[in-house]
Amino acid sequence: MKIGLLGCGTVGSALVQLLDADGDRLGSLLGEPLELGRILVRDLHKVRAHEVPMKLLTTELAEVIEDPEIELVVELLGPGEFALSAIESALASHKSVVTANKEILSTHFRELESAAAKVNRDIFFEAAVAGGIPLIRALRVSLFGERLTRIVGIVNGTTNYILTQMQEEHVSLETALGDAQRLGYAEADPHGDLSGRDAASKLAIIASIAFGSHVDVADVQVDGIWGVTPADFDFARRSGGVIKLLAQAERSLDSPDAPVRVEVFPAIVMSDHPLASVRGSFNAVFVEGSAVGQLMFSGPGAGGLPTASAVLADIIDAVTNLRNATRAPMRVAQGTRFVDDSSIEGVFALSVDVIDAPGVLSRVSEVFGRNLVSIARMEQDELDSELAHLVFLTHRTRLSSIRATMAQLSELSVIQRLHKVLRVLE
Amino acid sequence: MKIGLLGCGTVGSALVQLLDADGDRLGSLLGEPLELGRILVRDLHKVRAHEVPMKLLTTELAEVIEDPEIELVVELLGPGEFALSAIESALASHKSVVTANKEILSTHFRELESAAAKVNRDIFFEAAVAGGIPLIRALRVSLFGERLTRIVGIVNGTTNYILTQMQEEHVSLETALGDAQRLGYAEADPHGDLSGRDAASKLAIIASIAFGSHVDVADVQVDGIWGVTPADFDFARRSGGVIKLLAQAERSLDSPDAPVRVEVFPAIVMSDHPLASVRGSFNAVFVEGSAVGQLMFSGPGAGGLPTASAVLADIIDAVTNLRNATRAPMRVAQGTRFVDDSSIEGVFALSVDVIDAPGVLSRVSEVFGRNLVSIARMEQDELDSELAHLVFLTHRTRLSSIRATMAQLSELSVIQRLHKVLRVLE
Ligand SMILES: NC(=O)c1ccc[n+]([C@@H]2O[C@H](COP(=O)([O-])OP(=O)(O)OC[C@H]3O[C@@H](n4cnc5c(N)ncnc54)[C@H](OP(=O)(O)O)[C@@H]3O)[C@@H](O)[C@H]2O)c1
Ligand SMILES: NC(=O)c1ccc[n+]([C@@H]2O[C@H](COP(=O)([O-])OP(=O)(O)OC[C@H]3O[C@@H](n4cnc5c(N)ncnc54)[C@H](OP(=O)(O)O)[C@@H]3O)[C@@H](O)[C@H]2O)c1
Repeated sequence: MKIGLLGCGTVGSALVQLLDADGDRLGSLLGEPLELGRILVRDLHKVRAHEVPMKLLTTELAEVIEDPEIELVVELLGPGEFALSAIESALASHKSVVTANKEILSTHFRELESAAAKVNRDIFFEAAVAGGIPLIRALRVSLFGERLTRIVGIVNGTTNYILTQMQEEHVSLETALGDAQRLGYAEADPHGDLSGRDAASKLAIIASIAFGSHVDVADVQVDGIWGVTPADFDFARRSGGVIKLLAQAERSLDSPDAPVRVEVFPAIVMSDHPLASVRGSFNAVFVEGSAVGQLMFSGPGAGGLPTASAVLADIIDAVTNLRNATRAPMRVAQGTRFVDDSSIEGVFALSVDVIDAPGVLSRVSEVFGRNLVSIARMEQDELDSELAHLVFLTHRTRLSSIRATMAQLSELSVIQRLHKVLRVLE
Repeated sequence: MKIGLLGCGTVGSALVQLLDADGDRLGSLLGEPLELGRILVRDLHKVRAHEVPMKLLTTELAEVIEDPEIELVVELLGPGEFALSAIESALASHKSVVTANKEILSTHFRELESAAAKVNRDIFFEAAVAGGIPLIRALRVSLFGERLTRIVGIVNGTTNYILTQMQEEHVSLETALGDAQRLGYAEADPHGDLSGRDAASKLAIIASIAFGSHVDVADVQVDGIWGVTPADFDFARRSGGVIKLLAQAERSLDSPDAPVRVEVFPAIVMSDHPLASVRGSFNAVFVEGSAVGQLMFSGPGAGGLPTASAVLADIIDAVTNLRNATRAPMRVAQGTRFVDDSSIEGVFALSVDVIDAPGVLSRVSEVFGRNLVSIARMEQDELDSELAHLVFLTHRTRLSSIRATMAQLSELSVIQRLHKVLRVLE
């Protein structure tokens, strides 16, 4: 039995390095060699982080897929149609698949899962979520018997690095982003990370596994970190917290098919909450279940070697299953209902810049009252002789009321600027 | 296929409750019912936390072991010869076993593992370590391909509860222990917890799995929390830390059979370390591997429902394997060497009460110098007009030198009392 590798970039090269260092030892423990048969790349002559025997490289997908010795295909190509069709053809050729591809899984989970089941092969994807943290297997195997009610965590290292910089160095989002790009923590096009889309993809996968339901990235309510300012950090600090981009999936236990709620949003996290101290590019995920209570998993959310470590774990599982002619049960139910937007509730921090004149506060407050948003705390800061910055911390209220409030505030002539709405982690 | 349950106390009753609530749903997802066939207890008429059908109860082990419908035995009896022989007979009767019994596993791991392998059945024990935290499966499956170098954590909830009380309420060990006993966090006989023995049992299991080696509780260097005083907490606080009972297993990557070091000790943990904020009866474990870096797992370390949740996960795995006629590979190598005592190194805090007279400090310091223990920081406090309290924080040094230093200090006439030696987590 041999392994076919698709892609030999950051993660692929690190995997080759791990297999070179330890493949023989692991293979003899498994009683089944862990040997690479073929490696697909775009450019045969590129210099790679870890040296690869030239004879293994190919630019033809068919040479991997059609090789009868290859029983397991590891897909580490990245987003796009090509990777999707490569996974599909691997499964169609009765090969098990290991992938780290969150984009594909968060949109094609259901089809790929059925395709794998049909040919009695595995599709594993530990590395697609939270890098080296063994979260997926914990949710899928260890916590399969739990009624999970909530998963909330930091699953995007780039935004967490930027927010940590803003918090600790008191810099703007733009400055922190520039630093992150220079240091390789953010890509040249950072939009997928900063918009919350990357976190939403991972959340869709997490929620699908945790709730045994089919959650697509399109089902996730997403707000990213664009627009978070140093003033927001000041307010968070005075409130005793920090700002984090959270991904949260919730389901009530009221009924077996209770609707699921999946959201990504920037939130104020109080300093005594363990998520508050997750710094830099680390990831951390809280899992709440009705019997087990609260668990937390944390570790490196990305990077070649940690991610390759998760890929290797999947390879070992897949090889063991191939050898035993079994596959891992997926246990995903069919239908999923989602909480509709209008019933989402939370605690919010709203801030606005207003013209500093008599009567302004009452005009602003009146809008909150009209929408039945009750205020837990209010702060006012002079910005200059003419402008004031107001921050309102609400009691628990509906997201729809907050949206209506913001819309109506934007129409007041005394409002100079509406800042980003933040959630408060409860 | 039915399940035989041995013991229906705190964890057993919680398991019956989980199966009552969810067994049907899980069974239909698994395609294999999760049904209790027989439950062994001592007293048929005891009132139980969760009601159990009288017809399932028995006081005869043979009625469980000899029932051909029962293919899986769940052992939740507690320490002792009876539980060991029950597990042995279950395996001898070709039944898979799930157990939460850390005492038995930390002394009979090797034999039980071989007995299970011989009959091609599983022995699973997720609940024996760190209660509801899915640590064992993470180490055994997800991290099987990692070269793990260190595991360090808080694995005894009773001592962590007591230490947290001492830290937050500024009370003595005796007061905190009394409170813990009243509230049910400590048993009437707390010695197994406070001596570090319970943590050592768990560490032996963790190290066996993490390093693929056979570690027995007798191999663990153990120091518990007896003798930790409020003065130690004051010093820890002034040093920027708290005191925790840690279980630590280490192995270098120098050679494939590098010796293993396993220790339980009270330590000063700096406040910015995530283990410092693990409060009350919670458990948390750090895992370091050469590819994955640092991972942390935390959650409830005990309690009926969280522990039963871990037992249920093992049941599901065992049932799946029985159905597929496979078993989980154990992948434990044979020989293990241990770091001998004399080469253990660390950073230590030593404190002594001395007669407050001229020349005393130099006599004390001379002993440190003679043993080549170099001091990073020293503090002196007046206790009363005649006594002073001295604390010395060392640089990294050998445990054997610290022991020699303490022995020689105890012979000085100016020494009134030697306090407990604490480690500092590095
Ligand atoms: N990097 C991380 O920290 C991380 C963490 C978690 C998950 N992941 C996921 O892991 C996957 C791989 O990420 P990566 O960072 O390793 O990507 P990468 O460095 O960009 O590597 C991509 C590899 O795929 C090859 N490739 C791409 N398109 C191809 C095509 N059409 N035909 C043949 N070869 C093609 C490239 O070949 P050439 O080398 O010849 O250009 C390259 O070797 C992605 O799905 C990513 O989301 C990455
Ligand atoms: N409690 C926790 O939070 C926790 C956490 C992790 C691991 N564990 C482990 O889980 C196991 C069970 O703990 P537990 O707290 O549930 O213990 P427990 O409350 O003391 O229950 C023990 C049960 O075993 C039965 N039993 C004991 N000896 C017996 C004998 N000779 N013959 C027949 N029945 C016998 C008892 O019967 P009766 O009810 O008739 O007396 C009782 O139902 C232990 O190994 C423990 O270390 C417990």
